[in-house]
Amino acid sequence: MSSIYHGHLTVSIFGQSHAPAIGVTVDGLPAGEAVDLAELQTFLARRAPGTGPWSTTRKEADQPEILSGLDRGRTCGAPLAAIIRNTNTRSKDYENLRDIPRPGHADYTAQVKYGGFQDVAGGGHFSGRLTAPLCIAGGICKQLLARQGIYVGAHIAAIGEIADEKYDPVELTKEQLLAPGAKVFPVIDDAAGQTMQEAIAAAKAELDSLGGVVQCGVIGLPVGLGDPMLDGMENRIARLVFAVPAVKGVEFGLGFAAAALRGSQNNDPFYMDGDQVKTRTNHAGGILGGITNGMPLLFQAAVKPTPSIARPQESVCLSRRENAILTIHGRHDPCIVPRAVPCLEAAAAIAVYDALLEEWERSK
Amino acid sequence: MSSIYHGHLTVSIFGQSHAPAIGVTVDGLPAGEAVDLAELQTFLARRAPGTGPWSTTRKEADQPEILSGLDRGRTCGAPLAAIIRNTNTRSKDYENLRDIPRPGHADYTAQVKYGGFQDVAGGGHFSGRLTAPLCIAGGICKQLLARQGIYVGAHIAAIGEIADEKYDPVELTKEQLLAPGAKVFPVIDDAAGQTMQEAIAAAKAELDSLGGVVQCGVIGLPVGLGDPMLDGMENRIARLVFAVPAVKGVEFGLGFAAAALRGSQNNDPFYMDGDQVKTRTNHAGGILGGITNGMPLLFQAAVKPTPSIARPQESVCLSRRENAILTIHGRHDPCIVPRAVPCLEAAAAIAVYDALLEEWERSK
Amino acid sequence: MSSIYHGHLTVSIFGQSHAPAIGVTVDGLPAGEAVDLAELQTFLARRAPGTGPWSTTRKEADQPEILSGLDRGRTCGAPLAAIIRNTNTRSKDYENLRDIPRPGHADYTAQVKYGGFQDVAGGGHFSGRLTAPLCIAGGICKQLLARQGIYVGAHIAAIGEIADEKYDPVELTKEQLLAPGAKVFPVIDDAAGQTMQEAIAAAKAELDSLGGVVQCGVIGLPVGLGDPMLDGMENRIARLVFAVPAVKGVEFGLGFAAAALRGSQNNDPFYMDGDQVKTRTNHAGGILGGITNGMPLLFQAAVKPTPSIARPQESVCLSRRENAILTIHGRHDPCIVPRAVPCLEAAAAIAVYDALLEEWERSK
Amino acid sequence: MSSIYHGHLTVSIFGQSHAPAIGVTVDGLPAGEAVDLAELQTFLARRAPGTGPWSTTRKEADQPEILSGLDRGRTCGAPLAAIIRNTNTRSKDYENLRDIPRPGHADYTAQVKYGGFQDVAGGGHFSGRLTAPLCIAGGICKQLLARQGIYVGAHIAAIGEIADEKYDPVELTKEQLLAPGAKVFPVIDDAAGQTMQEAIAAAKAELDSLGGVVQCGVIGLPVGLGDPMLDGMENRIARLVFAVPAVKGVEFGLGFAAAALRGSQNNDPFYMDGDQVKTRTNHAGGILGGITNGMPLLFQAAVKPTPSIARPQESVCLSRRENAILTIHGRHDPCIVPRAVPCLEAAAAIAVYDALLEEWERSK
Repeated sequence: MSSIYHGHLTVSIFGQSHAPAIGVTVDGLPAGEAVDLAELQTFLARRAPGTGPWSTTRKEADQPEILSGLDRGRTCGAPLAAIIRNTNTRSKDYENLRDIPRPGHADYTAQVKYGGFQDVAGGGHFSGRLTAPLCIAGGICKQLLARQGIYVGAHIAAIGEIADEKYDPVELTKEQLLAPGAKVFPVIDDAAGQTMQEAIAAAKAELDSLGGVVQCGVIGLPVGLGDPMLDGMENRIARLVFAVPAVKGVEFGLGFAAAALRGSQNNDPFYMDGDQVKTRTNHAGGILGGITNGMPLLFQAAVKPTPSIARPQESVCLSRRENAILTIHGRHDPCIVPRAVPCLEAAAAIAVYDALLEEWERSK
Repeated sequence: MSSIYHGHLTVSIFGQSHAPAIGVTVDGLPAGEAVDLAELQTFLARRAPGTGPWSTTRKEADQPEILSGLDRGRTCGAPLAAIIRNTNTRSKDYENLRDIPRPGHADYTAQVKYGGFQDVAGGGHFSGRLTAPLCIAGGICKQLLARQGIYVGAHIAAIGEIADEKYDPVELTKEQLLAPGAKVFPVIDDAAGQTMQEAIAAAKAELDSLGGVVQCGVIGLPVGLGDPMLDGMENRIARLVFAVPAVKGVEFGLGFAAAALRGSQNNDPFYMDGDQVKTRTNHAGGILGGITNGMPLLFQAAVKPTPSIARPQESVCLSRRENAILTIHGRHDPCIVPRAVPCLEAAAAIAVYDALLEEWERSK
Repeated sequence: MSSIYHGHLTVSIFGQSHAPAIGVTVDGLPAGEAVDLAELQTFLARRAPGTGPWSTTRKEADQPEILSGLDRGRTCGAPLAAIIRNTNTRSKDYENLRDIPRPGHADYTAQVKYGGFQDVAGGGHFSGRLTAPLCIAGGICKQLLARQGIYVGAHIAAIGEIADEKYDPVELTKEQLLAPGAKVFPVIDDAAGQTMQEAIAAAKAELDSLGGVVQCGVIGLPVGLGDPMLDGMENRIARLVFAVPAVKGVEFGLGFAAAALRGSQNNDPFYMDGDQVKTRTNHAGGILGGITNGMPLLFQAAVKPTPSIARPQESVCLSRRENAILTIHGRHDPCIVPRAVPCLEAAAAIAVYDALLEEWERSK
Repeated sequence: MSSIYHGHLTVSIFGQSHAPAIGVTVDGLPAGEAVDLAELQTFLARRAPGTGPWSTTRKEADQPEILSGLDRGRTCGAPLAAIIRNTNTRSKDYENLRDIPRPGHADYTAQVKYGGFQDVAGGGHFSGRLTAPLCIAGGICKQLLARQGIYVGAHIAAIGEIADEKYDPVELTKEQLLAPGAKVFPVIDDAAGQTMQEAIAAAKAELDSLGGVVQCGVIGLPVGLGDPMLDGMENRIARLVFAVPAVKGVEFGLGFAAAALRGSQNNDPFYMDGDQVKTRTNHAGGILGGITNGMPLLFQAAVKPTPSIARPQESVCLSRRENAILTIHGRHDPCIVPRAVPCLEAAAAIAVYDALLEEWERSK
């Protein structure tokens, strides 16, 4: 009851940052689907550490080994399991965190919840590293969705207060959707991206970190995915998006901005585009009543600034029950947002593919 | 796979706006807990229509009948089921919506998903009316939580661009938390509330509607509720919050505002308050790594403006496949936000009580 | 986590024997399916008390009220909820059972589990009466399956040591399958049925009760329903069959008799029947590796003798912690087996329809 | 939705017989529990092939590697994942089975279900080899249960028509329960065991196989584990027991024999043994209304004879749609029953520990 998404697809994530391995099982994939391991590797590389100055210097090949679920390169109906070995671990960097928890991290809450038995090395099961198995599952779903003409992409919408352009909510093309993901620094507007990178470098130089916002889009969706109330597309996506440790908010379409509008402004008028029902605007982010309406599905996630900063911080010594000053060692990202981009694509892809499987069941 | 929250507690919601009844089953409540039906009724009355000029004129007593799960006034270990009969229905108001869907509503998506077999009367299963059974389940959880010293409250944080004060994120008392809920118009600052009501009246006069933001808080929480990754408090609450039809975004603690900060600003420093570990600020909203840290749990939900407005709107005629102008009849709230306040408390209460049950299991 | 079957279909049962109502919600039914309420009523009448001398004299109309999930007589995509009001209750018959538990019943275990807060009247949630909502869900599934050419039937295979004929495991026709269910006393061989009824009458006259075996069959199944390991057809059916309170064993195909055979005797040889793959025998009961093979699916369930007998029995007084003699009042079946027949059909129908929905998902 | 047990504990099994690995994840274990890997290895050795003449000659070390979930030898709150590498594979033995399915096996049903994409080598995901990860999960649960004074044991109750003694249903001691499991051939009565082994040798000499019955017992149980209807101990255990591929039936207490008795014979009279409520007989197998009553929990599982026999058998050629004679190569057990004994202990241990976790939650 913790690291499992249990829908028509069951995605079960395991591992700790410095355990022998991290991994995932995916149960419920249809049989006969080819999995392109090279493409999966390319997708995982977007999340892997060490690709730019904004990222931790811990280097991990992050090469998944598929243990089961494939036969002759295709899904065979059995659960797919994949692992990534942890190799480049420096556990002693974390020795003091059991007693002096890092502000903004799960060190303290895990210490209490697990009675001191939690694995603190590298953040244990709470490490951002656990998004790698999420990306394995999501990367496979992305491939299967693409085969149905459904595409998932994302970009950095903001770093600190520097904003990227937004996806066109109505006319979003496959090229526009996927272009940022092909860049080392995944933005639409490279000039904004340049400013963002400078801001990250500045924060890093000041032993600080930066947060940001990621926008994610899905196009090519049929009308009718998702369910009312507890299993709407918003519920499913939100549940998966908050699996990415640094996410503190999610909004669909206009989201919080919609709250400031009137109904006459926010409603998306329907019209016929040839024989297709479309909406002239897309403030709803492609979801009505929890169900896709065929317009681009769009959401944004707020990513907090990396809590692990090199500056001395106020904390407490749990054993002595007194205040303490903590200086964090270890290797950390001054800004996690670029690496969060593929993770949010993965979250969306799992949610959408799960809903698609369910719709296939119903539509028979 | 649609209207069920399936955790340690299983909450299963059923009904359509104009079906014989709406209702809920709650499976997994501990035996021996008294349920105060008068208090539950008071809670439901906060959500019921017809309490103010911002609300629909449809009047429903919304009196739940407990069908099972109680014996001599206490939970008896069996699933609790409760229903509310639908009485004040005017289904003919909705006859045209099967063919001409309302912008911003699920009419079109439901039509496609269910092949025209959906119940359109009153919005069917997509009606805001279905939040009444959510409030039955949540209202019971609120009572059980209060017995553990855990309190759940909420208030209107904004209507349109008019903001209420926020809850004190660090020192929030039970009185402050619960005060807004005791008012007919649930705000902290009544002057702001007055302005909000005038804005709603103005929008109504212009045949329009308004959205807003609700802030919800939970205090008295032990450290350690929630799980990493897919079952963190954010995941659980988000999944339930999006069950309230008009919600389009959710953020915890500073949420999207955190994305614009640096780590040194956003991190909540730990300190000892006597023998208790506390944080000096509470930007995290009381959740670290998905797990409660003992500080007030705080989140905000964006509520879109009621899509049902009396103005003529652009839509399409599905049978003729041509554009059409829709004028909505029926009785609708010019602003759903005041009635959403108890619904969000209910969502939070279910999520928190579910996590508490799980923690009891682990802590044995 | 108690009275819920959670698959592609979620069936959630609630109620106590003497609570205001018993009922069920079924979530996940496809939209657009007609539900024949008269046919459902006929099916429920087979389970209802008071149809013969082997049954309790408690009379309940057992008329379900559909509260939601239907629109214009068809499923509308929303959860279907149905209740049956409890009317003919004589709760005082049960007053002593909280302190002096009935042997063979859940009185004692419920007392301990629920700390004395359980509803003892009529057996509360443990009553055989709770199989009525199971039959509502199962009766609807039976209708939907029949529309796909899949038929579910059952008969009394034995009462005490008196055996009925068995279904032909290879050539079972729809007529043979359904014929027993159309009789008041559901057997294949009426002569055996006569002897059984005499044996029940004799047991009743001696203030005693009798058990028996029910055989259930499903025909018209496609090849490929069910999943390996935890979700095979055996796992699913077994899970549902043990929801019928008196069932103490289940076996598929030859079941326990297979354990005494050699592989060369037990294996079912494949052969081509025209273009169809069939097996010459059907010792496997139509299931290989948890998955249907297209042959009749056959299983048997052992039903224990009704524990409520009028003879004085040894028990204990829980409050005084001393031995006691119990004489049971109330109205009870001298043999529950005839009424268990439709319940087991219902269990099988739910399991099979659930697996069919899943297969539809996969086969798209 | 296939190889997952999803309760308070989630056990997710993956792997194919000749894939790189088989394995399991166990989510929901309390933190701080030591796992004795040597003891686990000893338990797994009881299931491993190659221990006697009744077993396949395929030799696998079956040494699990714990990938995650432990820290300093104890559970750390994160999901536990363990794998066993497949080493001794001879896939070419299975090449013909995609086209000519083995009678009594899942070859044909898997071929249809997965459209020919299933992994046939060694039986793929349907192989008895997949019970090894079940035993990893169950072996860990057995250790955790023993720490609570709850013991799980099993023995061969019959091979073909040769019966072992049964466990004493009332007075079963820990020594009696566990003694068979310490023997190479796990029976109570070694003389019967000798006859069984001779019968297996005879069947093997005739290129044939034998089935049998396993009896499993659990002692030290508190009163109150399990839930009514769908989550009774019978439902949970049955669901797990049928995960062992060759099992075709399960019965609790007297099971099918109870069906032939009268209520006065079958009911277990209660009496006070000091301050403890006990039953004089234990025909119910320690379960009343799905809930443990404190007496030994006892059940039996029917294990069919190994379908893979060396004799030529009738089958079909799926590609040519014609009858065919199949001669099976590969290495197979002439009797799977001895190796099924620990598997059924594992199934029982998972079900019981899951119910115990739930009870801990409720009893807070």
